[in-house]
Order: sequence, then C-alpha cells, then structure tokens
Amino acid sequence: MFDEDFDENAQIPEQSLILFGATGDLSKRKLYPALYRLFQKHSLPKTFRLVGVARHGYSNEEFRKFVRSSIETYSREDPDMSSFDEFSKLVYYRGADATKSEEYGELKKLVESIEKDAGMAQNRLFYLAMAPRFFGTVALNLKQSGLTQLKGFKRLVIEKPFGRDYASAQQLNDELCDVFNEDEIFRIDHYLGKEMVQNIEVLRFANSIFEPVWNNRSIANVQITSSETVGVEERASYYERAGALRDMVQNHMLQMVMMIAMEPPSRLKTEAIRDEKVKVLRSLRRFSPKETASHVVLGQYSKGSVDGSEVVGYRQEPNVDSASATETFVAARLFIDNFRWAGVPFYIRTGKRMAVKATEIVIQFKDMPKHLYFNSDGNLSPNRLVIRVNPKEGIYFSLNAKRPGTDETVIPIAMEFSQAPENSPESYERLFYDAMRGDSTFFTRWDEVSLAWKFVDPIIEAYQEQLGVELKFYPAGTSGPEAAHRLLAQDGAHWWPVFGEKSALEQQPEPARAATEVVSS
Amino acid sequence: MFDEDFDENAQIPEQSLILFGATGDLSKRKLYPALYRLFQKHSLPKTFRLVGVARHGYSNEEFRKFVRSSIETYSREDPDMSSFDEFSKLVYYRGADATKSEEYGELKKLVESIEKDAGMAQNRLFYLAMAPRFFGTVALNLKQSGLTQLKGFKRLVIEKPFGRDYASAQQLNDELCDVFNEDEIFRIDHYLGKEMVQNIEVLRFANSIFEPVWNNRSIANVQITSSETVGVEERASYYERAGALRDMVQNHMLQMVMMIAMEPPSRLKTEAIRDEKVKVLRSLRRFSPKETASHVVLGQYSKGSVDGSEVVGYRQEPNVDSASATETFVAARLFIDNFRWAGVPFYIRTGKRMAVKATEIVIQFKDMPKHLYFNSDGNLSPNRLVIRVNPKEGIYFSLNAKRPGTDETVIPIAMEFSQAPENSPESYERLFYDAMRGDSTFFTRWDEVSLAWKFVDPIIEAYQEQLGVELKFYPAGTSGPEAAHRLLAQDGAHWWPVFGEKSALEQQPEPARAATEVVSS
Repeated sequence: MFDEDFDENAQIPEQSLILFGATGDLSKRKLYPALYRLFQKHSLPKTFRLVGVARHGYSNEEFRKFVRSSIETYSREDPDMSSFDEFSKLVYYRGADATKSEEYGELKKLVESIEKDAGMAQNRLFYLAMAPRFFGTVALNLKQSGLTQLKGFKRLVIEKPFGRDYASAQQLNDELCDVFNEDEIFRIDHYLGKEMVQNIEVLRFANSIFEPVWNNRSIANVQITSSETVGVEERASYYERAGALRDMVQNHMLQMVMMIAMEPPSRLKTEAIRDEKVKVLRSLRRFSPKETASHVVLGQYSKGSVDGSEVVGYRQEPNVDSASATETFVAARLFIDNFRWAGVPFYIRTGKRMAVKATEIVIQFKDMPKHLYFNSDGNLSPNRLVIRVNPKEGIYFSLNAKRPGTDETVIPIAMEFSQAPENSPESYERLFYDAMRGDSTFFTRWDEVSLAWKFVDPIIEAYQEQLGVELKFYPAGTSGPEAAHRLLAQDGAHWWPVFGEKSALEQQPEPARAATEVVSS
Repeated sequence: MFDEDFDENAQIPEQSLILFGATGDLSKRKLYPALYRLFQKHSLPKTFRLVGVARHGYSNEEFRKFVRSSIETYSREDPDMSSFDEFSKLVYYRGADATKSEEYGELKKLVESIEKDAGMAQNRLFYLAMAPRFFGTVALNLKQSGLTQLKGFKRLVIEKPFGRDYASAQQLNDELCDVFNEDEIFRIDHYLGKEMVQNIEVLRFANSIFEPVWNNRSIANVQITSSETVGVEERASYYERAGALRDMVQNHMLQMVMMIAMEPPSRLKTEAIRDEKVKVLRSLRRFSPKETASHVVLGQYSKGSVDGSEVVGYRQEPNVDSASATETFVAARLFIDNFRWAGVPFYIRTGKRMAVKATEIVIQFKDMPKHLYFNSDGNLSPNRLVIRVNPKEGIYFSLNAKRPGTDETVIPIAMEFSQAPENSPESYERLFYDAMRGDSTFFTRWDEVSLAWKFVDPIIEAYQEQLGVELKFYPAGTSGPEAAHRLLAQDGAHWWPVFGEKSALEQQPEPARAATEVVSS
C-alpha cells in the first residue's frame, strides 16, 4: 500500500498543482487563501507551480491579479501580502474548456514547459474544483492527452459529492479508476481537515484513561451535531437535488461517527486507520425502508427568525420548488452492532437555518445508578466529554463536584480546554499539505464512500417511497423539528445544547430542565 | 450507630458550646472567626450560647472584646462587624483552671443558668482547644462535676494530636471513653474540613467515569504532597517532641490516602464511610523496622532561602536542640495491599520550609504502552488528575492532544476547574457545623487513629533505633532532600511539581525534563 512508503518527515516532493475550476467559488474562497498561507509558512514543496485552468480567457497576469484579490477578500485573517509577488511567480493560467479533449494539448505543452523551465520532476497533482458531473470526463481527457503519462507521480484531488447514490458513485469511481489508482485518488471530506476532528484520533490514542471507558459499559450515547444558521444560499439548484442526507450525512456525519467509533488500528498509518473506519460502516446497522421511520427524522425549515432577522422558508428560497420535498434537516439514531458499541445509540443531527452554527460531538457517559450515593434522587447530571469542532475549538468535560460551602449539594462543573482558533489551520491548508505529501489518511477511501451510500440509499428510498418517513417542518432559527427531540426522548435521552445555544454553565441544570428548554426553543 | 439517626436536613439542635482554652491561639485565630461567620450565615443553632473557659480573669464584657478583636484580626476576609453586638449576646466567660476539679462547680452553675435563661435544652458541646495532655483530666472533671450528666446530648470535640504513639493514644482514649461514648467524641483532623478533601468523595462517587479507572489497571501511582514554607515558628517545643511523622503523616497524610483509596461504601453515611477508610489502613502495608529505610525518607531543613529571605536551619531555631534529630520532612512510598491497589505506590511527602506552600493530590494514570501509537518514542506525558487542596482549590486534568497546525505533534493540554477560594468555608466553619449537627463523617474514629499509629510507630522506632533510616538535610526553600526524589526514581517515577513550583503549562513538558528540574531545585 502507498502508506507503507509514506514518511512523515520527508521533504514534500516538488510538484505542479493543476487546478481545474480555477476561477470558481471554492478556488477563490478556500484554495488560494490556503495555498498562500502554506507558502508563507514555507509548507509548499520547495519547487512548486500552480497552473490554473478555467474557461475564462485570462492571461497569467490577469489570473495572478484574480488570485491576489481572492486572497485579500477571503483570507480568514487579514493577510500579509508582502510576499505575494514572490508567490505569484509560481502561478500560471491556461484558458480551456475542460470537457473538450482537444483543448488538453496546449495545456500539456504549458505544463511541460513550466516543468522544464523550473527543472522539476514530472509530479502532478490534479485538483478538480468543479461540478462532479465533469469528473469522469476530465479524468478521461487527462489520460487521453497524455498528461497523466509521466515519470513522476500523478494524484487526483476531488471534491464532494462523490455520486448521488451507490450506483452513480460506483460508476464515477470506475471512470476515475480507469486513469488513477485508488491510492492516487484523494477524495476530500473537508470535515476530516478540521483540527478537532483530527484531534479525535489523538485524544483517543494518546491518553490511557479513555480506552477503558470508550465502550458500551461506560458510554450511554454519542451525539453528533452539525448545525448551520445559513439557509440554502446560492446553492439551491444543487441542494434541491441533494438534500441533507446526501450533502451532510453520507459524508461528514458518518466520517465523525467513524472517527469516534473505530477500533484502535494496528498502527496509526493511513490504510490501517481507514481499514478500521470501514469496519465501523460494516457494523453500522442498515435500516430496512420500513424501519427507517423509527430512527430517522427529516425536516425542512419554514419561515422564521435567525439572529433577529425574519427569513423565508426553504420553499420560498430562489430556485427552490415551492412544493419541494428536499430535507434541510436530518436527525437519526444509529447503531453500531459490534462488541464495543452494542446498545449505544449514536444520535446525529444536521440542519440548515438552525438556532446556532456549531459542530460538536458529545460523549455522554452512563448515569450513576439511581439510588446510589448522590444520585438517590436521580437528578445527577451525567458526565460528558464534548469535542467542539466548530466554530469554537476545544474539549469540554463535565463532572459533578461538591458545591463549596457547608452543605453537601452536588453541582456540575466544567473543565475546559479551548484552542485559539487562529492557531488552527483552515481545513484546506491541512488537506493540500497532506495531498502534496501523499498522505491520504484524512481523505476518504472508495470502500468508505460506497458503504456510506449503502447506508444512506435505503433511507432516501424509504422517504421517496413514502414508507412512513414524513417531512417535518421547523421554523428557521430553531433546533429542528419536535420529532428530533422525541427521537431521543424515546430513549430517555435529550440533545445537549451545543455551544451558543446556552452559556456553558446554563447548559447544565437538571437534565430534565435542559431537555424541556431545548424542545421549546 | 449514631449516624443511623442523623438527618441531613434537620434543624441544628439548640446547644451550648463550652470552649476550654478560650483565650488560646487556636480559639482566637480559627474558632471565633469561624463561629462568627457561621452566625452571619445563620448556620448556628437557632438557640446557641458560647461559654469560654480559660484561666484569665475576664469578665463577660472583657471576653467579648477579646472575641471581637480576634475576629477582626484573624478573619480570612475583612469581616462585617455590624452584627457582632448581636453575636456577642450569645457569648459568656468563666475564668477557671480546667485541671482543678473544684473549679467546675461554678462553671456548672453558670452553664445551667444560661440554659435556663435561654429556655434551652441541655445539649452541650465541649470543645477542648488546649494541650492534649489535659484532655483526660478535663474529661474526668466534666464527669465528676456532673456537667456531662444531662438530659440532652453531650459531645466532645478535641484537637490533634491524639497521643504520641499507639500506647499513649490508647490510654487517652480509655480516659475519654470513661466519660464519652465513641459516637460522642469528635476528633478533629482539620484537613478533613478542607473543601477539596471533602470533594474527593463527591468526585469519586458522583461521576460514573472514575470508577472504571480508579484501580491498579489504570493508575500508575498516587502522589500526595503537603508542603509548607514556614518553619517551626513558635511551636518549637511541641514540634521537637513530635516531628513530621506525628504532626502530619499519622493524621492528615493518611487521611488523604484513605479518602483516595477507600472502596465505595455501602452508603454515604458516616459509619459506612469510616468503615471503608479503616479498611484502607488495614490493607496498608506495615513496614518492619528493617524495611523502613527502603520506603521512608526523613529530612530536616538546614539554612537556606525562602521567598528571597535567608532563613536559619531547624537546629538554629529558638527552643530547638542544636543537635536535634527531629524530622521536619517525610517522604514515603506506601502500598495498599488489596485487589484495587496492589502494585500502585502511594507516594506521600510533607515538610516545612519547602519551596512552596501547597497541598495537592496527583493521580497519575498509566503510561501509554511504549511503541504504541503516539508513544513510539516513549515521551508521551501520562494523564494526570490533580486535586488541588490548598492554597489553590480545584481540579486539574492533563491530557494529550494534537498541536494545532499541519504537523502531528502531540502536546499535553490542561483542563482545569478552579474554585474561587472565597466561596470555600474555612475548615473550622465546616467542622463546627458538622459537630453541632452531630455529623462525625469528617472526624476521625478511634480505630482510624489507632491503626494510623500502628503504621507510624514502627517507622519512628526504626529511626530512633537507627535501623538504616538516616536524617537527610535539605536547604530551606527547596523541595526536600535528594533522597525523596531518588525514592520515586527507583520506580521510574518523579514528583510532579505542585502548583507554584512552576506554572501550570511549564509543568508539562517531557516528563524527563520536568523530573530533572524538580531534582535540581
């Protein structure tokens, strides 16, 4: 396997990045700011060239201005542009319609001449920042033009979504595999580039205290929330065809489930880790279409209020069908049927136009047995380990302790470690860096993708065939439909408020009260 | 047993507090400030009288002034004296030599008349804030005078030390038990009144995550430090006869060991808890005089520097023998030979004139196995749970996490919960409150005292008979003699710096470095 040869400390090999979709949204918002930051941190390969490809008829100079303005506009922090001129010398542009094979000849010549001028080995990273429907065509064109016949390495980075169901994903994969080997394909799931998602592995495997309690003897449930306050924005035409199950659950949510649930890998190497992640998906109970309604809640936002502003419902958004059945919210109860997790529900929820923007993972430990010690009234708050992924980054641990004073009152206390977000690289910095080094640990492997579709497909089918799964509406700016709260209430559980829903201290009164408040929000 | 009848929520019964040693150091520094704070918090019994007894010929008014000035001088925070006049109406005085039985008649009359005037039941709490050599005599005098023959309850509160070895403790206990039942005797160990020591029980038994790891499968060692920066001060004549083993180890240090190590009690009731504490002492391995030298380090401070000031050595202190062999420092490796703790060393250390003033308990969890995951170089910091008793109060948890950025470096992080010390009552507030309620949970039972002596006696014997235990000298202002560091180094361990030795973050570089720095300090 590729990772057998992968050396963490090796210098990043010289390479060209050939970026398709170079004038698109993702490129300007995320990729150029990330590349420029890597350049400033001396984390690009020692010899590096960027060749942008898009249909615009830019000259190199015009493209460099475009890149500069993207960095100035979209960098997370005010960027220091003093080294941009140096960076821009590495940047080239080729106007071309990537779907037309005849336009690849000139591109090939350009890339080769750049490599020759720079005295570089032929190592090429192809990045497809474009609509997935073009992936297969571009791959074929790359092959036919000879751009992928080279002395060095070739790699392909592609954005989600990878298919819209198992069948289409399989077909796309077949097309790509005609040109690239599996270990040359880097499927981006940018959640895997998030600092705190990567930290899950370190937390679990660099601390001896967690392994003894990381199982169904100690853990009551796991809750993974990824909520957004934004609506569908300008992505309506894509989103109408996708919905939250395809857009969030099949990839990001299941990736986080895998990171939390996987068995310790034989070693912390790419393929060993991905082998264990895949095993989680193999143990993930698939719902028959009939079972789906018991475990899955789908919702769509209606009009409401976000941050004090009135906003329209999903069906009133531009480019959305006024009778659209697309789900903008999913909550689900998952089961991982293996020895470690049998009986521990994994609750996931994700939605647009929710009360707060937050990605958080809550490990809720078992209640103290009732009638035991301080839990004689059964109102002791359970221990929780909270991994805050976004926008706050950190770890939060809730314990029970004695309230200072002469009485014996037990109160929940919070132990917290927060990371200064400015220390965390953007996901794309990390993912570029890994792809350039050839480390595919935080990219998704084909079997992960395919098994994730095999889990999601029957749910979509159950919904489309109206097998009891009904769309629930929730006012924009709330924590989703009531049914999502009932889902947990059936198990005697409740969603813990994510950061921002209430202050960290308010989050922890009696669980019962917290539950009520969430429901009524 | 008494606690069977004890009701947490009952009103505190009306009672008189008859305080012997009413003009002494403890009374003025600790007891009056504590009583006044309880009064202000409405935590005294609804009907309450204080009768001070000492040899001074004070009138009630003079005594009240003395009490007022004690509160003003020694309260931890600037006291609000506006309700002192009201408090002082509850305060009476009787000049008497407590060793003379003939002087008890008048005292009895006074107490009875106060009770009658107040319409109080005859409930009497006798508090002996005086040298222990008088305890037996005073108890006998109380009995012979008839002061302890009453309709209500009688209780006796006594200060440490309880004997100077097992034999003298046994004799004292016999004398007291002639007058008071065991459940009427409240032996103070003021460490048990400390907020964070009481919190140990809550932490352990109100949080489901700790029990699975609270044993020799997960814990590498336990470290209990109680260090002072002060020297022997004006207590030299007492200290010369006592030493750190009697003054600190037999009581406070072993009490903390018991709180950490005890099995879960059948219920959180006084006698059930004390039963479990006693079981720890029964499992505590007693060292034969010959074994002692391998596990116990005794030290004495020589001249040095504390907080930038030069200070003399112990032998140069006033009222100390210039060839004194009294130990001012003890470090020891204890073993609790039961299923839970077999193989887990409990390291304790206590000393005067050390680098910082701190009482802390460190639970050091096992290292990650070497060669496993992030510990392939073996330099991963072990997880630690730190209970900070004094002067900082709180809980501190060290974990390993990923350093933000594009590399995979693992760094120790700290999760902390600190308590605002102003929220914590002084030990004596808590202990008064408990004694007045009749809750003896945080007082020591005779079998605890006797077993603690049986552990300490052979160590003292080994030292006195020079069976290999030598006095080691350490410069004032350091962390004790080198031998105390070697004691842990033999096990591949090291003392973790206590709060103040280094900043919380500096505490956690590579363990090796931390160890070196401690040793060289």
